[in-house]
Amino acid sequence: MNNPYEFAKANQDRFLDEYQELLRIRTISTQPQHAGDVAEAAEWLKAMMLRIGMQRAEAVLMPEGRCPLVLGEWHGAGEDAPTVLIYCHYDVQPAEIADGWETAPFEPTIKDGRLYCRGAVDSKLHVMANLKAVESWLASEVKPRVNIKVVLEGEEESGSENINAFIAAHPERLAADIAMVSDGAILAPDQPSLTYGLRGIAALELQVNAPVSDLHSGHWGGSVHNPIQALTEILAQLHDENGTVTVPGFYDDVVDVTATDRALLQKVEPYLKAEWEDVVNAPALWGEREYSLPERLGARPTLEINGIHGGYTGAGMKTVLPAQASAKITCRLAPNQDPARVLRCVMDHISRLAPDSVAIDLRPSEPGAAAVLLDVDGLAMRAAAEAYEYAWGVEPVFERSGGSVPICVECAKVAGEVVIMSYGLKSGRAHGPNENIYLRNFYNGIQATIRFIDVLGEKRA
Amino acid sequence: MNNPYEFAKANQDRFLDEYQELLRIRTISTQPQHAGDVAEAAEWLKAMMLRIGMQRAEAVLMPEGRCPLVLGEWHGAGEDAPTVLIYCHYDVQPAEIADGWETAPFEPTIKDGRLYCRGAVDSKLHVMANLKAVESWLASEVKPRVNIKVVLEGEEESGSENINAFIAAHPERLAADIAMVSDGAILAPDQPSLTYGLRGIAALELQVNAPVSDLHSGHWGGSVHNPIQALTEILAQLHDENGTVTVPGFYDDVVDVTATDRALLQKVEPYLKAEWEDVVNAPALWGEREYSLPERLGARPTLEINGIHGGYTGAGMKTVLPAQASAKITCRLAPNQDPARVLRCVMDHISRLAPDSVAIDLRPSEPGAAAVLLDVDGLAMRAAAEAYEYAWGVEPVFERSGGSVPICVECAKVAGEVVIMSYGLKSGRAHGPNENIYLRNFYNGIQATIRFIDVLGEKRA
Repeated sequence: MNNPYEFAKANQDRFLDEYQELLRIRTISTQPQHAGDVAEAAEWLKAMMLRIGMQRAEAVLMPEGRCPLVLGEWHGAGEDAPTVLIYCHYDVQPAEIADGWETAPFEPTIKDGRLYCRGAVDSKLHVMANLKAVESWLASEVKPRVNIKVVLEGEEESGSENINAFIAAHPERLAADIAMVSDGAILAPDQPSLTYGLRGIAALELQVNAPVSDLHSGHWGGSVHNPIQALTEILAQLHDENGTVTVPGFYDDVVDVTATDRALLQKVEPYLKAEWEDVVNAPALWGEREYSLPERLGARPTLEINGIHGGYTGAGMKTVLPAQASAKITCRLAPNQDPARVLRCVMDHISRLAPDSVAIDLRPSEPGAAAVLLDVDGLAMRAAAEAYEYAWGVEPVFERSGGSVPICVECAKVAGEVVIMSYGLKSGRAHGPNENIYLRNFYNGIQATIRFIDVLGEKRA
Repeated sequence: MNNPYEFAKANQDRFLDEYQELLRIRTISTQPQHAGDVAEAAEWLKAMMLRIGMQRAEAVLMPEGRCPLVLGEWHGAGEDAPTVLIYCHYDVQPAEIADGWETAPFEPTIKDGRLYCRGAVDSKLHVMANLKAVESWLASEVKPRVNIKVVLEGEEESGSENINAFIAAHPERLAADIAMVSDGAILAPDQPSLTYGLRGIAALELQVNAPVSDLHSGHWGGSVHNPIQALTEILAQLHDENGTVTVPGFYDDVVDVTATDRALLQKVEPYLKAEWEDVVNAPALWGEREYSLPERLGARPTLEINGIHGGYTGAGMKTVLPAQASAKITCRLAPNQDPARVLRCVMDHISRLAPDSVAIDLRPSEPGAAAVLLDVDGLAMRAAAEAYEYAWGVEPVFERSGGSVPICVECAKVAGEVVIMSYGLKSGRAHGPNENIYLRNFYNGIQATIRFIDVLGEKRA
């Protein structure tokens, strides 16, 4: 073929087959029993990099030895050409049919132009759209005018601890002029968007212990502070009626929304409201009244309870007064909040709230990540905007995402500029049941990455 | 043998073997998948009744057809003799090794004079102590001077709905002069006690729903009232700092502790405090400061959260904003509280507390049972006191139990007098992991029931 755009179009069916092949591998990095699946996927990805013509590819075992980093490199543009680093992750969140899936979570199912599977959006879509864009370039007569590095992470969903250590130890391996972090979602299937801000994250677990063993609630109820009750009493004090977090110091370092932010984000509001009605559809909108929906979701910090458990939760009743109850909590962070400091504030506050009648155990469970704010007028951001316009035929809008992509912070350490290019959709239900993607966005994504590489080369020439 | 006391002593080893045989059958009535085990146990018990010489025995299928009632009868004392009805239940609570069991929950294990198994205390101990007492009488030369009816229930742990209907439909089948309800616990291994009061029970489940599906907590957190958070906010408002229930109307009909109660229960306090230190051992005693420990446990109503669940509770983190969260709640009731009215008060209050940002679903999950207060000076109570003193060599003290034995209310409908005879122990961890019983209390229980039957015959003569 003459050019990569045509090659990609001619090979859509095969690309889709390969995407589905990767989706079937259960790369759940949060569950140690899936270490073998993660390793299998890493070998599969490394083999693909070599097959599509990358000059170097390897699966690097991380220190804990269970979630390899897959690195690939093509340096055919020459020493003087700039280098683009493409980052994606191939691990996924857990998924069980019992969570509400209508199809088997790890069997890709195509229905009405959508593909349903755990990882379809988050983030094997990005892994495959980018690898297939690189393949399309390397299979064409015209070659990229930038060198290309690809890094695929295997533990983004479980804390990214090892990739950070790897980058710190081997900065030259990922060094680039521009890092393209490919993860996340655009605004609507036919309205691309560029994310210029991301929330950070800090996570912890709280366990409340009272009696030394599970007890009969009839025999002992009324004489011991039920740990479920104590847990609810603590958790209920973490927000006020406005949805504002009540932890002292929580908002101290937050950089507030500016007039520019407000203007950019206003364009996003109608889309987000429509998506909220579609995807969330709770009895009422909720949260800090003084902020708009895109501001609440993209620019404001939150404290969420992601899981709670205590006592008997099976079918029927069991009159137990349990020995413990626990909750998993994550905070999404605004720019300038330090994850460690936020965790300390939350843990201190919970310790103060805990009554003497119970014992608590607090465990910060991830290193956390700071929020990110990118320059909307940078070279990479402008190239990305052009790439989206080419692939979608629509100018992208600018937004701030509520999710956390900690790797952006790390990439900024080895790259001159960072840009986030997302081909997923919020309605794609990342992390939830029935995760899915419009197939046309997979194909658009391939075209966009091809174009992004093209424009970076043009701008250099 | 000449008399039942000697027969029982001579056959202790065989009695223990048979007790263990029954313990191995997983009669979990709250879990429909164990219906076959419950049916197997019913047939086993019916066969035993016939083998020990009862004149009539049958396993009656309840309307729902899964937890048979086993009825046995011996009427050899003649038409003019009084009849004693012995009630026990052979079903048990669920048990999983993961709950903290040190031995397989359904494999009886003897260690240091104790027998560990689900059901060891609650309540196969009572089933077997009473059947073996009847066997000892019927195998002896001297015969009982009272007629004996035995009724063994198979769904005490799951609401007792069918036995109530059965008694209402066939009162003559269980009609008796004295009903002995055999369930529950004595004060200490070597200090028998007679329970003259029992708390009632009322149960419900609460589910909080917000988004239509599980969501990514980064993408949507801050715009929707997290149902786990909303649930904790509701539950945290159900008690004040004193442990007093805040539900309006909750205490309206409660008959308060009298001076007589206070005097009787004072004797129990040191035992209960020691047992609390041993079994509960929470960081602090908790509950209504204006009531003593035996009063809090036996005479005051409570509201307990028995289970809570929402979001992701497996290993590691999952940044999910769940569609729902739920809790199981039981109230223990004081004399004169109507279970239906209490449930209505609690449900009305929860409905008022629930914010518009979530939807709630409230399900009363059991018909409930009223509390019971028995006459400490009645004929049956005095015969029971004599039986305990004979078997243990120690006068029993009088107490009120925190547990609920709804069947007492039903038995009062068909019997002139009701007495509760318990051979279990609170430290036996009924409903919890490592449920156990001192073997000597099994043997003492057999002697006590033999003596109870003897004394009732004497008092008649």
